[in-house]
Amino acid sequence: VIFTTISSDGIPNAAPIGIHLEEGGLFARIYPSKTLENIKINKMAAANITYDPVIFVRAALTDMESNRFYYEDGFPVLKDAAGWIIFDCKWRENIVELLPLKGKIIQREIMPINRGLNAVIEATVHATRYVVLRENEYYSRIEYNNMIVKKCGGVHEKEAMKLLYELIGK
Amino acid sequence: VIFTTISSDGIPNAAPIGIHLEEGGLFARIYPSKTLENIKINKMAAANITYDPVIFVRAALTDMESNRFYYEDGFPVLKDAAGWIIFDCKWRENIVELLPLKGKIIQREIMPINRGLNAVIEATVHATRYVVLRENEYYSRIEYNNMIVKKCGGVHEKEAMKLLYELIGK
Repeated sequence: VIFTTISSDGIPNAAPIGIHLEEGGLFARIYPSKTLENIKINKMAAANITYDPVIFVRAALTDMESNRFYYEDGFPVLKDAAGWIIFDCKWRENIVELLPLKGKIIQREIMPINRGLNAVIEATVHATRYVVLRENEYYSRIEYNNMIVKKCGGVHEKEAMKLLYELIGK
Repeated sequence: VIFTTISSDGIPNAAPIGIHLEEGGLFARIYPSKTLENIKINKMAAANITYDPVIFVRAALTDMESNRFYYEDGFPVLKDAAGWIIFDCKWRENIVELLPLKGKIIQREIMPINRGLNAVIEATVHATRYVVLRENEYYSRIEYNNMIVKKCGGVHEKEAMKLLYELIGK
């Protein structure tokens, strides 16, 4: 999902984060980042559900433009989300426990699994590591996933990969 | 999606197939298989939408048990599907054009992207090649995806990978 948070000076942030359900609780492992800083300040985060591959790439590799957010009781969520949940957050080091406060479902569609979209997500995970470490292993994983996007993806997935390559400087 | 078809002697079959939307039409590339044989006989196939990783593994690597199907106007669809569409099929070699006849949405849920589920799908694609070719490249791709399942998957994804390893004899 895409986590949205807000800084102490009111700047909204978006970043892809994985949520785990464990022993009946929801948890996210969040490495030192703007997202974690903001959570520590506000004790709040929103999980935005989206199937838009471009949003995943943008949120992972850039600062999301402020016009992509809207505010729900003063808290930022994504305009293009199919739904969101705002959480109260508790943390211990980089493990954040998520306690649902409020949620909204905007779009309830039946979505078949899309290997092209999934490959963009995987490529994005590797891209976030590649931009920091510049290791070839990550780049070849991006290339492999791009091959799947070419075969299985639609126009949105191909657009997302084009953006990804631009943002990693390739 | 999972394609369900029926043979000339009335035996239902299930197999994972990818659908492409191109120039306003729906197409599937189906290699010589029971699915393609059945389509050539009946000119019909159903696309079943499911998020159950065990169904993908079973449909890819085994003959699905007959009690997993039910019949809609005499045509088999999956009991556990979140929805299905029955298609009229036209083919040229292994490209099948899909013309929607009838559909049903059973479950309309908001489903966040699940990297664990996606990794099972990728592992399953490689497993179908591995069982035929026994090439190490496919096995190492399965192992890589299993690593993602261990990290990101839930109990269903882990169960699916356990079954996959059994079915490929590892």
